[in-house]
Amino acid sequence: MYIEVYVEVRAHIYMSRVMLMADPNIEALFRPRSIAVIGASRHPGKIGYTILKNILECGYKGKVYPVNPKADQIMGLKAYKSVLEIPDEVDMAIVVVPEPLVLKVAEEAGKKGVKVLVVITSGFSEVGNVEAEKKLVEIARKYGMRVLGPNIFGVAYTPANLNATFGPKDLRAGPIAFITQSGALGIALMGWTIMEEIGISAIVSMGNMCDIDPVDVSHYLADDPNTRVITIYLEGLKPGQGRRFITEMKKITMKKPVIVIKAGRSKRGAQAAASHTGSLAGSDQIYSAAFKQAGILRALTVEEMFDWARAFAEQPIPRGEKTIIITNGGGVGVLATDAAEEHGVELVVPSGKLKEEFRKTMPWFGSPKNPVDLTGQAVVDNYVKALEVAYESPEIDNIVVLYCRTAILDPRDLAKAIIEVAKKHKDKQKPIVAGFVGGYDTYEAMKILNRNGIPAYPSPERAVASLAAMIKYMRYRKKKEK
Amino acid sequence: MYIEVYVEVRAHIYMSRVMLMADPNIEALFRPRSIAVIGASRHPGKIGYTILKNILECGYKGKVYPVNPKADQIMGLKAYKSVLEIPDEVDMAIVVVPEPLVLKVAEEAGKKGVKVLVVITSGFSEVGNVEAEKKLVEIARKYGMRVLGPNIFGVAYTPANLNATFGPKDLRAGPIAFITQSGALGIALMGWTIMEEIGISAIVSMGNMCDIDPVDVSHYLADDPNTRVITIYLEGLKPGQGRRFITEMKKITMKKPVIVIKAGRSKRGAQAAASHTGSLAGSDQIYSAAFKQAGILRALTVEEMFDWARAFAEQPIPRGEKTIIITNGGGVGVLATDAAEEHGVELVVPSGKLKEEFRKTMPWFGSPKNPVDLTGQAVVDNYVKALEVAYESPEIDNIVVLYCRTAILDPRDLAKAIIEVAKKHKDKQKPIVAGFVGGYDTYEAMKILNRNGIPAYPSPERAVASLAAMIKYMRYRKKKEK
Repeated sequence: MYIEVYVEVRAHIYMSRVMLMADPNIEALFRPRSIAVIGASRHPGKIGYTILKNILECGYKGKVYPVNPKADQIMGLKAYKSVLEIPDEVDMAIVVVPEPLVLKVAEEAGKKGVKVLVVITSGFSEVGNVEAEKKLVEIARKYGMRVLGPNIFGVAYTPANLNATFGPKDLRAGPIAFITQSGALGIALMGWTIMEEIGISAIVSMGNMCDIDPVDVSHYLADDPNTRVITIYLEGLKPGQGRRFITEMKKITMKKPVIVIKAGRSKRGAQAAASHTGSLAGSDQIYSAAFKQAGILRALTVEEMFDWARAFAEQPIPRGEKTIIITNGGGVGVLATDAAEEHGVELVVPSGKLKEEFRKTMPWFGSPKNPVDLTGQAVVDNYVKALEVAYESPEIDNIVVLYCRTAILDPRDLAKAIIEVAKKHKDKQKPIVAGFVGGYDTYEAMKILNRNGIPAYPSPERAVASLAAMIKYMRYRKKKEK
Repeated sequence: MYIEVYVEVRAHIYMSRVMLMADPNIEALFRPRSIAVIGASRHPGKIGYTILKNILECGYKGKVYPVNPKADQIMGLKAYKSVLEIPDEVDMAIVVVPEPLVLKVAEEAGKKGVKVLVVITSGFSEVGNVEAEKKLVEIARKYGMRVLGPNIFGVAYTPANLNATFGPKDLRAGPIAFITQSGALGIALMGWTIMEEIGISAIVSMGNMCDIDPVDVSHYLADDPNTRVITIYLEGLKPGQGRRFITEMKKITMKKPVIVIKAGRSKRGAQAAASHTGSLAGSDQIYSAAFKQAGILRALTVEEMFDWARAFAEQPIPRGEKTIIITNGGGVGVLATDAAEEHGVELVVPSGKLKEEFRKTMPWFGSPKNPVDLTGQAVVDNYVKALEVAYESPEIDNIVVLYCRTAILDPRDLAKAIIEVAKKHKDKQKPIVAGFVGGYDTYEAMKILNRNGIPAYPSPERAVASLAAMIKYMRYRKKKEK
């Protein structure tokens, strides 16, 4: 039932999108000069409290206006009875009032000249209340205002220190943008990215997508110098959105890599997605084909999506296919080799000359073939020398460096050395990924690597899979640029 | 070249195995009453130092005899010039002397009546020194002694507080046995299991497998009450080992689940494995078919192997196929549904009556279908009630409980509640797995769950995949038991 009513709403909204499409007000979603929080609250635990607090405590530099007819002051700021009373322009208005009041405050926001309305409030089409959502769009259209939501947790953009969400406030800044159709998953993943030290440029909760959709947001982020890769959790597109999504994403992927996790790829999963966000799921093969056509990288799990994003975030796009694996453990070397074949990563067959050079970097019982096995006797110096050879050799485009915890080589020392070598050879434009296996100190070493621009993974397979995603993207770009 | 010489050695050794096969001395590998460390050292950094230290500091209760002709005392223990001088029986002798001395000390150990020789020393067939390895086996055979190794990091068995390895010493005790053909990977994973709080019964480094092989060890562990699941990192079997491996593993998997990661499954990977451990890799399809026939579960990554092992370690084997997903987030519910279809997990379609019961556990806008969506408004009470329904319903065999971090439900409170409900319904014999998404406190909650017998994973997909492995094992057992 939700699907049917959705179709109706979407058809309606799609008509109006034509007018809104070129709207520059999307920028106000990321770099508003001023924000009104309509429904700001003095009571901890309330969403209107948390959002205002996050905005204030995360260092946002613009003006902030709490709107609450029952309060004079909130968090030391003067509170206004209505957005209309604010004696200044308002770029972004965040709406957290109960659903029955949303249309009224939207109308006021429109009158006020608000550029973008961020409607946190739920209780719209996701529970069958289609009428109100339709009206919300009508109001927005009338005033040339854009709407994010409803039924979302907000938006964050770290380059502007903007955290207009009710999620955690200590987001780590970085070049990965994350657009999510699922609110609960998105907000949970905010916390997860903090723990995993994944650097985020933007997080956008899409919710019911009554107006602003992933394409609008991706277009902005594709031109955003603070974003290097766009990740999207998608459950489904709605009628009328499909063609636009592919056409526009084609343009976007020529600027930046886009990784999508399309949930609801199984039959049962699609049904679950339909009842969750009301998406018209459509056949999964159609999505797969469309993504491929648009140059979108499709991840199958959240972990995979962020694994790949980490690589794109920090490393240059590969310039060729030829990959070398350097390891101190035969076992992880074999696992990486399996993963390379599985993911279509071409392992270079070193020339005699190159083998000779690698031979000089290792004990006599090592192997200069690919994987280059420095053996369990390897110390920092062996790795540094082998990496130097790899960076210098014209036979090699991409580097996978693996490490198994041994008693004689502290992974933290190795991490620092890898960072130095990589820095020295930055001009070579050779992507490098690391796969480290071990306990606490190895985990620490991976943090050091990740903080310093070397994507590091707790298994050889994940390192290789992430490089594979970059190579796949390179192939698409090269084909299109011909 | 390594392969060829290996074939020769193996053929030779296989003949001798017939005599050794029924040898009860394997028990001395896990529960030795006394241990001699031949090549024990007073110098930190030496392997002969670390192994002795690990044995002493991990609480081993038997007698320990350092053997070192140049020392009177090591770590407060009297040192002996030769194992022959020890005034007591010696069950296990650990050999860490340089390769040229190994045969001599092996001969002495044989004379002494040592039951099992653990040869840490490398420099044997793995580097082409086939003759010495052949002689080592001849000596062992002459005295009825078994040999683990050479070229290994040792053996650990937590129920006897035995850690005769040069790996980390703070292994976490638990019911997962781990047998590894790769030394470097194995020792790195020791550290990893500690960090991940994976409970280990035994870790056995196989090395060159000149005598004792994974079958010998698995037979012992299959009857070991402290082991519930056997995991094996395998690079390849050698000529003559294949048939025995399948025949014997068939018996073992009727007692306990066996999970194998067979590295070298790609063409290049097989070559790498061959030059690493000298394994005759063989076609990967042959391995796959053989594993299937023997009821072995094949994992593709190390993470996957231990994910599954964690489930087997703590939960009962499923009694049926019908699985329910309980969640507070639609998104993770969809991802879990996709994973269920992918892994062949049957999601139950709840009857009208069951839906009614689930309906009572959630807000009005929740969904009593499968996934059961308690919504982002869910608190502990909603989960407890829904879990009660799931445990009580005869329509349900298996439970997947998912959680997305929300502001209103602390994951640690939820963890404790899940543990209580699961304990209460232990007699129902319904396996439960958890998939939690969030930041630090969610991570903590997962630790609480894992420590209390509920396998918890940081993604819905990994939780479902682990349950799927259990269901697969159940199907095999049911088919065979008919």
